[in-house]
Amino acid sequence: MLKLNLDHVLMDVEWEKYQPRVSELHHQLLSKTGKGNDYLGWLDWPYEYDKQEFERIKKAAIKIREQAQVLLVCGIGGSYLGSKAAVEMINGHFKQDSLELIFVGNTFSSTEIVRVLDYIQDKEVAINVISKSGSTTETAIAFRIFRQFVEEKYGIEESINRIYVTTDKERGLLRPLVKERGYESFIIPDDIGGRFSVITAVGLLPIAAAGINIDKMMKGFVDGRNEFSKENITENPAYQYALMRRLLQEQGKDVELFVTYESHLSFISEWLKQLDGESEGKEGKGLFPASVTNSTDLHSMGQFVQEGTKLLFETVITTKNPLADMKFPVDATNADGMSYLENKSLHWVNQQAMLGTLEAHTVEGNVPNILIELEDNSAYTFGYMVYFFFMALAMTAYYLDVNPFDQPGVEVYKKNMFKRLGKE
Amino acid sequence: MLKLNLDHVLMDVEWEKYQPRVSELHHQLLSKTGKGNDYLGWLDWPYEYDKQEFERIKKAAIKIREQAQVLLVCGIGGSYLGSKAAVEMINGHFKQDSLELIFVGNTFSSTEIVRVLDYIQDKEVAINVISKSGSTTETAIAFRIFRQFVEEKYGIEESINRIYVTTDKERGLLRPLVKERGYESFIIPDDIGGRFSVITAVGLLPIAAAGINIDKMMKGFVDGRNEFSKENITENPAYQYALMRRLLQEQGKDVELFVTYESHLSFISEWLKQLDGESEGKEGKGLFPASVTNSTDLHSMGQFVQEGTKLLFETVITTKNPLADMKFPVDATNADGMSYLENKSLHWVNQQAMLGTLEAHTVEGNVPNILIELEDNSAYTFGYMVYFFFMALAMTAYYLDVNPFDQPGVEVYKKNMFKRLGKE
Repeated sequence: MLKLNLDHVLMDVEWEKYQPRVSELHHQLLSKTGKGNDYLGWLDWPYEYDKQEFERIKKAAIKIREQAQVLLVCGIGGSYLGSKAAVEMINGHFKQDSLELIFVGNTFSSTEIVRVLDYIQDKEVAINVISKSGSTTETAIAFRIFRQFVEEKYGIEESINRIYVTTDKERGLLRPLVKERGYESFIIPDDIGGRFSVITAVGLLPIAAAGINIDKMMKGFVDGRNEFSKENITENPAYQYALMRRLLQEQGKDVELFVTYESHLSFISEWLKQLDGESEGKEGKGLFPASVTNSTDLHSMGQFVQEGTKLLFETVITTKNPLADMKFPVDATNADGMSYLENKSLHWVNQQAMLGTLEAHTVEGNVPNILIELEDNSAYTFGYMVYFFFMALAMTAYYLDVNPFDQPGVEVYKKNMFKRLGKE
Repeated sequence: MLKLNLDHVLMDVEWEKYQPRVSELHHQLLSKTGKGNDYLGWLDWPYEYDKQEFERIKKAAIKIREQAQVLLVCGIGGSYLGSKAAVEMINGHFKQDSLELIFVGNTFSSTEIVRVLDYIQDKEVAINVISKSGSTTETAIAFRIFRQFVEEKYGIEESINRIYVTTDKERGLLRPLVKERGYESFIIPDDIGGRFSVITAVGLLPIAAAGINIDKMMKGFVDGRNEFSKENITENPAYQYALMRRLLQEQGKDVELFVTYESHLSFISEWLKQLDGESEGKEGKGLFPASVTNSTDLHSMGQFVQEGTKLLFETVITTKNPLADMKFPVDATNADGMSYLENKSLHWVNQQAMLGTLEAHTVEGNVPNILIELEDNSAYTFGYMVYFFFMALAMTAYYLDVNPFDQPGVEVYKKNMFKRLGKE
């Protein structure tokens, strides 16, 4: 579950004043009559998803865990950010598991590709390639290289058994390959954009392969969808967060700094950078999304946040119950002067750091802080949180009067790049 | 080596106009008469460093590599950012090495600490604890926990053989422990602040332990120090970069977005966030430092950079010769439509992505871009680059009229935190 705390935003909001506008946008959204309404498939997905495919995802995940030591998740943008954020949040770093996920197909870095090839040389490997068009350049390059690796290692027949394709139902370059070879395949729906696709097979197969219970995650999607679709802004934390972002930007806070207090939550911020930045960063508008992981980054970015240019507010994502905890041990010599913390829970210490920072940044630093407290780092809470951010994003972008579901600006560099690469 | 390219900053600069001010600040810096002048030890360090200690660092590194599978580098802020940036840049990710570096002591995350403890349970371990005062809370907590682990695993006597302490020459809580136990120790100089400390034992011991040639890195420090200390701005790329940052901020570009095109370079951006953000983020001034790794993040942040709020400029750090490269393989079926890239170097493809993006962001997006091209990812080039950024930072902060070498704002959250933790 999830709690929103707006006690530290350094302003008072009369929610009622904004209710008419929020109601109008809410109805546009739910009746699918607003901007970008042909990409609203995510809205009812938790009710309408393909149950048979969902069961196939779970079976494929079990098969992958049996056959492989490394799953290469080959995708870029929305085709990896959500699943990586989920797996890191729910499993944590340094988890000792029989299957390792390596996210490839998201870079042209020759160094990275060569090194991953070296690394998997003697390991049992499976691939999940994820691309709607099949022509996303980074992903297509990596898929050719790693597919050839698997074909050479296992032969064509067994390679078919180890390649899982998540793509468009009919179109694109991967579908014909699926039909020709007989790869097991999963569908990227037409009406769900990349940055919302963690709720589909795009996210669910890698997440399930990581040993995570996707039934519980789906329950989180359903409950989050229900909870954060209330019209009344005073009853809907997602809409409150949405509005608060706009009010803070209207005050000149052009940067939203996402803050986590555990490194294994930091990829939530990366996922949010796409969800928010790509949705509202258009027509010269939108909040610039940035991130830190505290208390680590208080020792690099803390000075700026405390006393630098006043251009930002913070959105702090914390966890009430961490994945693991321990008591600080006793040392009778107290040579390090740390004995005042003996037998204290480390998570409690982390929470005091968060609270002390909150006070420093808001009271002394005059930097508004929004708090989002997660109950735990479970699959259910991840799913629930996803819909908090989905509903908030839709409302906040509609409030900004932009289409949250297109991304016209990402084609510009591709056009230039293709010209340089000699693509016809 | 390093080249600065200012062809895409979307303005013409008459360097001569700024020479008098730059000359004045240059003399303040080199004669050590400017703000924060008691923290200018980094300036002449490449000439004056302790040669005997340098040899001891190399010997200790060899010993660590012989005795351990995991080196726990226990430090926060400047005590880990520089060495992590160096090791990732020079060794790359997924390097198969007998020694793994794990950076601890930079978080209160109970999950992270418990997981690392689990992970090292059956491995041979050494520790390098790095803290000037010995009382930095994150580091002191981790050091007690991991020191006890090593003492229990090996016994007190052998633990002494596996713990390396980098701390103040005389003061602080770690020095008495060194004297009592006889740990091998290295010195953090009084006049070199944390964010400049990568050039000292702070950075050099972990870097050398990672198998990197620190003689070559020191040569890079020397050559960079010489190259980027020229008074004449037209002959000094570091001062040009310094001035450009100020001129861009004066135009309302309050965010500097550091861009790399390989994930193993992305920690350079993290190191720069401390170097720049902590140095100039004071008195309500300074550029907000953020970062992306392209082309990966073009699929999340690309839309915002291209068409979002016009608050940023980009500083792009690229590499001419990567750590590894390969040719894109042939597939006679061309089912993926990628055969137009066959036999092309992947690094060349990555460079075309960079050039296409540069054009898209500057020409169509009207976002100024500064290019910093590194010759390669060697230890020498890292060292050379460090002084480019050091000299640029000193000049840019003096130009902004702030003291680049203090960080008064980082004490505020600590004060609040200590109160909550019950520290006397």
